[in-house]
Amino acid sequence: MSTRIGIGLLGLGTVGAGVASILQTPEGRHPLIADLDLVRIAVRDRNRTRPIALDESILTTSPEAVVDDPAVDVVVEVMGGIEPARTLIMRAIAAGKSVVTANKSVIARHGEEIAAAAAAAGVYVLIEAAVGGGIPIIEPLKQSLGSNRIQRVSGIINGTTNYILSRMAEEGADYNAVLRDAQDLGYAEADPAADVEGLDAADKIAILSGLAFGGPIDRNGIYTAGISTLQSRDVDYATQLGYGVKLLAVAESMEPDPSHPTSLPLAVSVQPTLVPNDHPLAGVNGVNNAILVEGDPIGRVMFYGPGAGSGPTASAVVADILNIAGIRQLKPADGNLDPLLAASSWRACHLANKEQTSQRNYVRFKTENAPGVIGRIGSCFGDHNVSIQSIVQLEASDAGAEIVVITHVVGNGQMSAALKAIHAIEGVLSLDAHLGCL
Amino acid sequence: MSTRIGIGLLGLGTVGAGVASILQTPEGRHPLIADLDLVRIAVRDRNRTRPIALDESILTTSPEAVVDDPAVDVVVEVMGGIEPARTLIMRAIAAGKSVVTANKSVIARHGEEIAAAAAAAGVYVLIEAAVGGGIPIIEPLKQSLGSNRIQRVSGIINGTTNYILSRMAEEGADYNAVLRDAQDLGYAEADPAADVEGLDAADKIAILSGLAFGGPIDRNGIYTAGISTLQSRDVDYATQLGYGVKLLAVAESMEPDPSHPTSLPLAVSVQPTLVPNDHPLAGVNGVNNAILVEGDPIGRVMFYGPGAGSGPTASAVVADILNIAGIRQLKPADGNLDPLLAASSWRACHLANKEQTSQRNYVRFKTENAPGVIGRIGSCFGDHNVSIQSIVQLEASDAGAEIVVITHVVGNGQMSAALKAIHAIEGVLSLDAHLGCL
Repeated sequence: MSTRIGIGLLGLGTVGAGVASILQTPEGRHPLIADLDLVRIAVRDRNRTRPIALDESILTTSPEAVVDDPAVDVVVEVMGGIEPARTLIMRAIAAGKSVVTANKSVIARHGEEIAAAAAAAGVYVLIEAAVGGGIPIIEPLKQSLGSNRIQRVSGIINGTTNYILSRMAEEGADYNAVLRDAQDLGYAEADPAADVEGLDAADKIAILSGLAFGGPIDRNGIYTAGISTLQSRDVDYATQLGYGVKLLAVAESMEPDPSHPTSLPLAVSVQPTLVPNDHPLAGVNGVNNAILVEGDPIGRVMFYGPGAGSGPTASAVVADILNIAGIRQLKPADGNLDPLLAASSWRACHLANKEQTSQRNYVRFKTENAPGVIGRIGSCFGDHNVSIQSIVQLEASDAGAEIVVITHVVGNGQMSAALKAIHAIEGVLSLDAHLGCL
Repeated sequence: MSTRIGIGLLGLGTVGAGVASILQTPEGRHPLIADLDLVRIAVRDRNRTRPIALDESILTTSPEAVVDDPAVDVVVEVMGGIEPARTLIMRAIAAGKSVVTANKSVIARHGEEIAAAAAAAGVYVLIEAAVGGGIPIIEPLKQSLGSNRIQRVSGIINGTTNYILSRMAEEGADYNAVLRDAQDLGYAEADPAADVEGLDAADKIAILSGLAFGGPIDRNGIYTAGISTLQSRDVDYATQLGYGVKLLAVAESMEPDPSHPTSLPLAVSVQPTLVPNDHPLAGVNGVNNAILVEGDPIGRVMFYGPGAGSGPTASAVVADILNIAGIRQLKPADGNLDPLLAASSWRACHLANKEQTSQRNYVRFKTENAPGVIGRIGSCFGDHNVSIQSIVQLEASDAGAEIVVITHVVGNGQMSAALKAIHAIEGVLSLDAHLGCL
């Protein structure tokens, strides 16, 4: 028994063309794909040449016409951007249609509103392609790890910055030089801000956090530091000390706050972070992504693969369509949803105050090349209860010295206070780098 | 709206106790867990002390009583072994009950019979815990990768052998010494054959192959070589050449055979294999497992984590229970199954003849320490169209020399013929090792 399912596509860019290509070539893929009919596609310009052959009659420049088409059962939104994507998704839900989207910006900002509308309408909004490109991570979080108390989700979830950081480490190259090269090669956008400032990774960790911990957080409150001010010397020093530098996104559960016992506090951040060479994330290079999930009783699992690109992202989009197609075979009479696939919130969560969270730190000071400075810095950290793992003078000349400190896990409040005090020490010229460290 | 679901457990060993422990402590896990009632448990000995507190009245020594109990909706088989596990699974299916099992031996050998019975009865048999311990791999293959044409599934799927190989590499230690130590530490069984001879890995790759390619293969026809005859010098030589040695299980699709066009030929094997240091599987050490899936259009994704142990395996078992509980919320009227979750076969597959498959090879010869032997070996490979990547003399003394050859990808038939011919060359004393190579 099979049911044909009409697919309406909003957008025929890289990902949209990848989706159409899979649907046009079902041989050798899961047989359910042959039940999917691509019935309508919204494009910006009907006359553009396309990388795939398509029946021109299904193209329209009106995305509303796709959403409203009675032959469209599932709306696939791969146009990107906040609007009109958000409005079109809401319109599809209101029409009782399930939605598949790769749009992390919309989900990170309007996920609550969209999820509530979908639950009320009895439809699914599936988002596997929004995080990690082709890597199955949304579905495992929803359907394979629910028996765990998740402690931490961390990962390399932006391919552009990982490509830049990998080349900086391999070649000892400067950030700006590698960025220009990445732009020429199409790995970075002309306006790279969303990637290099960590905003894309913040969208994605907001989504992962919501699924891992069962409740949404305020996307705009996530501590976010990018790589645009990262200096190649810090990448070099990290290498010398046995680390790689990655733009790491982390969401971690904290002890409940007694004054706020019904909501789970989470420490969520995006920042350049030193990763020890023997850590599973250290070997993730180039445009690859990887997400590490830690929980009880599973321990630590990692999901690794291509974090972007037409094919991988389309693979994830079609996986979501297949899941909706699979569930439809059950023909539930009353609009009930599978609670795992629907993944509605089940717990209140909130962002902890950054000063109350903790981490290991890498800091680099410029100092005068004079005896006693290292000792004074070390003492000052001690006075503020900041426990140090190593303090190393890495370069020294008449112009001054560079001192790199790696701390143990310390409260960010203590760390800020210590850094402020160190700034006032005689012989300390400047704090030139402050990164996270695993 | 929620539906309470009665769980019957067959077995209360390491995994069973882990499952019970999760069900007893639902706080902080997916809320659906609170809807699961552990109503009956079959144990071998009622009087044994247990690591967890349990209502003694739900224990029974009769597994049939658990399966037949009308309060049991889902039967969880974690007793292991072929019988009576197979019969009990079939009995549960006949009673219209879905089954969750961690039993790779039963599924690898009787999967077809069990799947057919489950489809006929309209119930699920879920097996996430059968491969890769806690790593979500069964569910991603079924529900997240269906849009792909899978080309290859390969992985490190036996924790015991990976532990032994990791220690051999780190310590330069001998196989037998590390095995004894692993037995003392509980990482290897008193009778280690199932692990060290590759039989456990062959069970698991048979299961992964069936899901990845859509059809079952003959478990008993899988080419299987274990690590019990692996010599530490080959691990050392591999290290010198930039490789690690892993017990690798591989299932790979081949070009359809024109004489057999309706069935997909697969090359499936388990053997010690050299993995280049920059390959994602190279960093998988100790009792960890990892599975690499390659397909079009996704490229390459990897799933990594703890391959065994009470907690991780229980995490996978309870994930399967949750999936059944989630689907039950839909109350399908007519016993239809979600085809992705049910994962019935959709294509005929068969094992290709080993002589017709190809691979890279690592071989080590003992030869006389005489000039010209390397040249004669190289020429002989060339005469048999075996293309060589490197040929190195690694040790030489009056007693003889050791020559290590790494080939490019060559047909196993050609390779066998070349090795036979080399055996007859003057100065070649013996072929002492023959491993795969990525």
